[in-house]
Amino acid sequence: MILVHHLRVGRSVFTVWLLEELGLDYELKLYDRLDTGRAPPSLKDAHPLGKSPVIEIDIAGERLTLAESGAIASVLVEHFDPAHVFAPPRSDEAAFAKWTNWLHYPEGSGVLPLIFKLLTSRAGEPVNPIVDAFTQGELDLHLGYLNDILSAQNYVCGDIFQAPDVGVTFLAQMAMGLELLADYPGIASYLQKNMSRPAFSRAVEKTGG
Amino acid sequence: MILVHHLRVGRSVFTVWLLEELGLDYELKLYDRLDTGRAPPSLKDAHPLGKSPVIEIDIAGERLTLAESGAIASVLVEHFDPAHVFAPPRSDEAAFAKWTNWLHYPEGSGVLPLIFKLLTSRAGEPVNPIVDAFTQGELDLHLGYLNDILSAQNYVCGDIFQAPDVGVTFLAQMAMGLELLADYPGIASYLQKNMSRPAFSRAVEKTGG
Repeated sequence: MILVHHLRVGRSVFTVWLLEELGLDYELKLYDRLDTGRAPPSLKDAHPLGKSPVIEIDIAGERLTLAESGAIASVLVEHFDPAHVFAPPRSDEAAFAKWTNWLHYPEGSGVLPLIFKLLTSRAGEPVNPIVDAFTQGELDLHLGYLNDILSAQNYVCGDIFQAPDVGVTFLAQMAMGLELLADYPGIASYLQKNMSRPAFSRAVEKTGG
Repeated sequence: MILVHHLRVGRSVFTVWLLEELGLDYELKLYDRLDTGRAPPSLKDAHPLGKSPVIEIDIAGERLTLAESGAIASVLVEHFDPAHVFAPPRSDEAAFAKWTNWLHYPEGSGVLPLIFKLLTSRAGEPVNPIVDAFTQGELDLHLGYLNDILSAQNYVCGDIFQAPDVGVTFLAQMAMGLELLADYPGIASYLQKNMSRPAFSRAVEKTGG
């Protein structure tokens, strides 16, 4: 049985969402944030980095602990999506390579300016001219890029919802929470569409967000 | 022929390093940073995000543009490492899942506090108590984590240099540049060892760093 270490409210709801999309059974171990907003120290028992999501999963008879959202998605799809609903088959080499690029995008590039914005918002802006200019420039760049794509097609890989959309929806939700989507209707409608999926609702309900 | 859009001095030398490790032919298109340290606008002709590395590659007869370091590594190994030197075969499912987690780690988790540190260093520290405390806490966590692992084994996946070591070496080099490695001898010796590889030297020589 897959065990998900879920810190609430937090991004691991997106991993649970993918599990729900795949129709998998899993157990949840729930952790609540401290009053400071940080993760409780008990999450370090699940993984030394004390982060979430972390999943424990049996692969080929070995119990593995995986702690990177993109890697978790990759492993889940590799093992539990035999009908290739959430990823193209590897034999479709060009489509699979593009899918792989999108799977890496949310954490590889997209999330950085959003985390900067989140942190500097908490700190009370403006923080510093260099930090603030970098953050704003990167936000404009990435949100504009995503908005262009999501205004031209339904999902990041084309017209079908696939695993990378889970990570990109996480970015979109974070941008919405930071009140950044007023000028990006393509992202806003994409977010709305994806949050309307029954599997997303089940994930929120079962985790508490 | 693979075309690498390389911004110097910059992280795309690590993509070139992997190409050298794989013994692949490739062309380099070199870009120099502006006086401000930012990338020149011409990089946006390669990819709308104007970042580097970006590679153009023919996969199954289609010319693809890939812009995420982890995805580029994944695609290169998938297509050009038939002897499984830089990744375990997919049939070794548990090893491949662990390899995947490490492939995502550098950009998924590891680089964030280093970029915060780089930016706040440029801004002149201290920037802000909340931002600075977050940055220092995350640096201690990730550098301590990597140092523990790299003090106990030669490479992140065990005793053999594999593709995820390219990304982790990038983190180590960034940490060294920020003068953060004095208390982390395991990372420092790992960096030294990997930078001594002939393929790394060739990548630096061909790109100009």
